[in-house]
Amino acid sequence: MSLTLDVARTIVAAARAHGREAGLKPLTVVVIDAGGHVVAVEREDGSSIKRFEVAFGKAHGALSLGMGSRALMARAEQQPYFVAAVTHAVGGALVPVPGGVLVKDDAGTVIGAVGISGDISDNDEAAALAGIEAAGLVGQPD
Amino acid sequence: MSLTLDVARTIVAAARAHGREAGLKPLTVVVIDAGGHVVAVEREDGSSIKRFEVAFGKAHGALSLGMGSRALMARAEQQPYFVAAVTHAVGGALVPVPGGVLVKDDAGTVIGAVGISGDISDNDEAAALAGIEAAGLVGQPD
Amino acid sequence: MSLTLDVARTIVAAARAHGREAGLKPLTVVVIDAGGHVVAVEREDGSSIKRFEVAFGKAHGALSLGMGSRALMARAEQQPYFVAAVTHAVGGALVPVPGGVLVKDDAGTVIGAVGISGDISDNDEAAALAGIEAAGLVGQPD
Amino acid sequence: MSLTLDVARTIVAAARAHGREAGLKPLTVVVIDAGGHVVAVEREDGSSIKRFEVAFGKAHGALSLGMGSRALMARAEQQPYFVAAVTHAVGGALVPVPGGVLVKDDAGTVIGAVGISGDISDNDEAAALAGIEAAGLVGQPD
Repeated sequence: MSLTLDVARTIVAAARAHGREAGLKPLTVVVIDAGGHVVAVEREDGSSIKRFEVAFGKAHGALSLGMGSRALMARAEQQPYFVAAVTHAVGGALVPVPGGVLVKDDAGTVIGAVGISGDISDNDEAAALAGIEAAGLVGQPD
Repeated sequence: MSLTLDVARTIVAAARAHGREAGLKPLTVVVIDAGGHVVAVEREDGSSIKRFEVAFGKAHGALSLGMGSRALMARAEQQPYFVAAVTHAVGGALVPVPGGVLVKDDAGTVIGAVGISGDISDNDEAAALAGIEAAGLVGQPD
Repeated sequence: MSLTLDVARTIVAAARAHGREAGLKPLTVVVIDAGGHVVAVEREDGSSIKRFEVAFGKAHGALSLGMGSRALMARAEQQPYFVAAVTHAVGGALVPVPGGVLVKDDAGTVIGAVGISGDISDNDEAAALAGIEAAGLVGQPD
Repeated sequence: MSLTLDVARTIVAAARAHGREAGLKPLTVVVIDAGGHVVAVEREDGSSIKRFEVAFGKAHGALSLGMGSRALMARAEQQPYFVAAVTHAVGGALVPVPGGVLVKDDAGTVIGAVGISGDISDNDEAAALAGIEAAGLVGQPD
């Protein structure tokens, strides 16, 4: 299956609902498809101006190497030069902290990624997972 | 007033509704705030992969020079080197064809811009205007 | 309220006056609006050639993530790869040392940022705070 | 002589005064030194968000090739590929329409440049010339 706009909208709505219920700071939620291209974005009032770029970087980085951005963080702590180099290689959009989560269908196929920025990274990731689950899909955070 | 996410969502929904009623091709709708930063995006199924960048470039170009992207097209036809130069100067995100529309409040203050790509430029612009009108705001296409 | 040119000029003048009274090295003072765009700049004689870019990077970085550049420094010391990644994501203009201060109005709304470079970072920050206070506004350095 | 901040401030103030007297649209005035680096900037309220970049590009382009930006426009009309190439070569900041004026001292030495954007190009240039003259210096618009 592909990540349709309806699915993306479900993910965005559920991630934002999670944020409100959990009392998180304003979130910016980005959903990209399997090719790394934007499907849907919502930046909540009070988010700082570059939160789209940060959230996109989490999702795009995750998809670039086929692992959640939590795994990118682990790699950055072990081999910062590798992550810096890949960041250059992919054009700059790779943010290696939690909050970038791969989206998989029932067959385990990666159909896209979600990136969230606004609260601390662990909370951003929790919101992404909540959104993906609400869409009946499977999130891979690392 | 500022361009809130609720307003942006209204614009996106109404622009897409216009597209469906008018039988337009799949649209990508981008709403940015007065500072040129993404507030909301939806890319309809069937849109090609870089429609976000094109739609963003229409909206961002309009805001950069304070005129709708239809006026940018007129300038590009008169002085193509000027528009090419400004595109560089603003970092690349300027697409000088109709479909990038300034959003003004009742006082005439520019509070953001809408960019749409997917159908022919005139139809993209009509969808943007429909979205802005539905939010009770004023669109400036040129 | 928005950050007008008159307000920006007041900030610049007061920050520079602070620098002279405190015997600081030549300062470059940059004021940007809520969208991250230049409103006023003055580079004092004797400032090195790229001080505008450094001061702008402090202010722009602060606004990008919604925290003063002192907080960006703390984050850089904890997670250097995160700050490096965000620097790429925002296009390069992010300098994570003190001297980039958010500007808030009475209601607590961020209306812009000030970036100063020229002396040691703590002194740059003090000059920024003096400038903001002179304009009757509130500075957030971290 | 070098282009000091005091001189730059005089130029900015006089250019803006000319704009007000002549009933021009809000102007953004940029003064750069002989090395092409920002000395002073003021963006009047109502200027669109990227006017600094456009005005800087006029001044920086003028200095890059040692001719006012009016001469760059003439060259762009004759050899658009040359101006496009130089724009790339200098990093993007070259806007080949009037409004970028070289600043010379009594000895005919180029000590900097002024770039203005906001009204039509001819009016931008007139404001730059007025500012330079008020500082007792000589402007070269082409």
